[in-house]
Amino acid sequence: MSCDFLARAVPGVQKLSPYVPGKPVDELARELNLDPVGIVKLASNENPLGPSPKALEAIRAELAELTRYPDGNGFELKRKLAARCGVQPAQVTLGNGSNDILDLVARAFLAPGLNAVFSQYAFAVYPIATQAVGAEGKVVPAQGYGHDLEAMLAAIDANTRVVFIANPNNPTGTWFGPQALAEFLARVPGNVLVVLDEAYIEYAEGDELPDGLNYLAQYPNLLVSRTFSKAYGLASLRVGYGVSSAQVADVLNRVRQPFNVNSLALAAACAALDDADYLAASRRVNDAGMAQLEQGFRALGLSWIPSRGNFIAVDFGRDAAPINRALLQDGVIVRPVAGYGMPTFLRVSIGTEQENARFLTALTKVLARG
Amino acid sequence: MSCDFLARAVPGVQKLSPYVPGKPVDELARELNLDPVGIVKLASNENPLGPSPKALEAIRAELAELTRYPDGNGFELKRKLAARCGVQPAQVTLGNGSNDILDLVARAFLAPGLNAVFSQYAFAVYPIATQAVGAEGKVVPAQGYGHDLEAMLAAIDANTRVVFIANPNNPTGTWFGPQALAEFLARVPGNVLVVLDEAYIEYAEGDELPDGLNYLAQYPNLLVSRTFSKAYGLASLRVGYGVSSAQVADVLNRVRQPFNVNSLALAAACAALDDADYLAASRRVNDAGMAQLEQGFRALGLSWIPSRGNFIAVDFGRDAAPINRALLQDGVIVRPVAGYGMPTFLRVSIGTEQENARFLTALTKVLARG
Repeated sequence: MSCDFLARAVPGVQKLSPYVPGKPVDELARELNLDPVGIVKLASNENPLGPSPKALEAIRAELAELTRYPDGNGFELKRKLAARCGVQPAQVTLGNGSNDILDLVARAFLAPGLNAVFSQYAFAVYPIATQAVGAEGKVVPAQGYGHDLEAMLAAIDANTRVVFIANPNNPTGTWFGPQALAEFLARVPGNVLVVLDEAYIEYAEGDELPDGLNYLAQYPNLLVSRTFSKAYGLASLRVGYGVSSAQVADVLNRVRQPFNVNSLALAAACAALDDADYLAASRRVNDAGMAQLEQGFRALGLSWIPSRGNFIAVDFGRDAAPINRALLQDGVIVRPVAGYGMPTFLRVSIGTEQENARFLTALTKVLARG
Repeated sequence: MSCDFLARAVPGVQKLSPYVPGKPVDELARELNLDPVGIVKLASNENPLGPSPKALEAIRAELAELTRYPDGNGFELKRKLAARCGVQPAQVTLGNGSNDILDLVARAFLAPGLNAVFSQYAFAVYPIATQAVGAEGKVVPAQGYGHDLEAMLAAIDANTRVVFIANPNNPTGTWFGPQALAEFLARVPGNVLVVLDEAYIEYAEGDELPDGLNYLAQYPNLLVSRTFSKAYGLASLRVGYGVSSAQVADVLNRVRQPFNVNSLALAAACAALDDADYLAASRRVNDAGMAQLEQGFRALGLSWIPSRGNFIAVDFGRDAAPINRALLQDGVIVRPVAGYGMPTFLRVSIGTEQENARFLTALTKVLARG
């Protein structure tokens, strides 16, 4: 007789629903028998610029070494990141995307009987990583779709090991300012690790958002996580990083798989860090696209959550699932966020001017049909 | 006052010593101020052939999509692997290297109070993955450096959830035959997952080693893990896979990070599967290189453990650390295995004819010095 291996799994895993990614273009093409070339994907907060030429060059230069394992210590990338962030290399942890960093934190510091605090409408990986290790996720009601930092402080108890906060937050795009962060950090108990997820910070830098790195020296219980998947345009390669005290980094590196970041990612990330033009263009295209979508939504009489990310959550005031289905039929992929408790919203990534226009045209058509 | 975050880590992680990878060429060059071009690395069981042209072509074709997330379901690669392995795509789990598969098994099925059984001299990731989740590793004494399957069966108790076996085994190169595997599987309780690690199987196929895939239909508690890092020559990219019952794969996929395998790895692995010439050449070069090293060891009066992998553990009958240091000084990197409890051995990966000759020359010189 066959054993029930789901019942044999550890309790947290038994109840786990995996993360649902944005629908890939090829998958939609297969499902609806559409030409992939005509499909527009604004579903995964990807960089619409296409690859950085410097990153491409670095990858090509690395191809001769395809049979070799990556540098498990990521020496060169850590050196560059440390210099850029004003920290020591020993304070940097490299991840297979920043998803990996969040996962490492959960595996290192959470367990059954312990908990992590995060906000309603926060990134789905916080609850998934927390549940996978059997810990409790304490979800703090949001305030106007953003983090209620005061309530999050109040939710911290003796069993809290980690607080996840995101600035700006995905999928809402909401943010908090330097004053709010400083007060929050000052009041979180020093033995609770604050994970400040800045996956989208490059789209908001110089704005009224604080740079989390500035708080590292004062708060050894702070970890700032960042990614090369968004503004740096390397989502396909999987590379993110955490910056923290050297001790926290040491703990995370114990759990980290020795070759978690592949060689092409290491090389491309080094090159991307040097490609200031690409980063500036990413920001520029995003600012313009955000204005374009807001303008389009305004014309359609729709409301949305103001966002500092490379995406925007638009509210239809009614179940958005039929609208999403109709957009898919038209070859436009955006992101349903009903799983986040936002069933009347769709999250739309900022694309190129043409992609945004294509989306707005499709949306106008869908809404006109009622 | 600063908190001790090592003491706050979960108990298994606190005591964890991370995996020590083979020394990268650049690292040795930096440390000893050597020219990297002159260094020979036979330390990580990498494929000495250089990249498969088909894999390179597939990577180049994928570069335009660098800003896009990978297909989180790995549709195409799973489809190809399933066809190749004679299973359904739902039975395949993709990993960021097979290290990831081993890690997923531990996270899904092990926890404090539970245990995993594995052999003395087995791959270091088994104890690391087991300890990281706070479970007990039951190490069964080896028999002549190989698995003592009878003793491993006897070590299984009510708290055993996983048995890790490797065929051939790394770092010893030892193996067991079809009869031994069949008897073992028949006697392992059906609710204990057997992880059969076949990372090196492509070097031994058609030989007296069983193909683990043949036992999947009969044993829903069997998972076969394989990798593209060795005979397929894609170590830099990180891609491995598990083949199991659909239920076990479903459980592992719940824990799996949604984009654990990067896009270039997915594309290159698909192409590598089709490159029969490369695989055949890998096997040929390995067979020849193995004979070359055995011949060299014989001439030097050294003994070794007969191996079916792409590496060979040679015994110096005395502490091998000074020999390793002398080889490093000469720009030859092999792998010390004192951490495996084999302080008199060095593990040497099979290289090209020239690399093997360079190693044997260096070794001869080192041993002549006494």
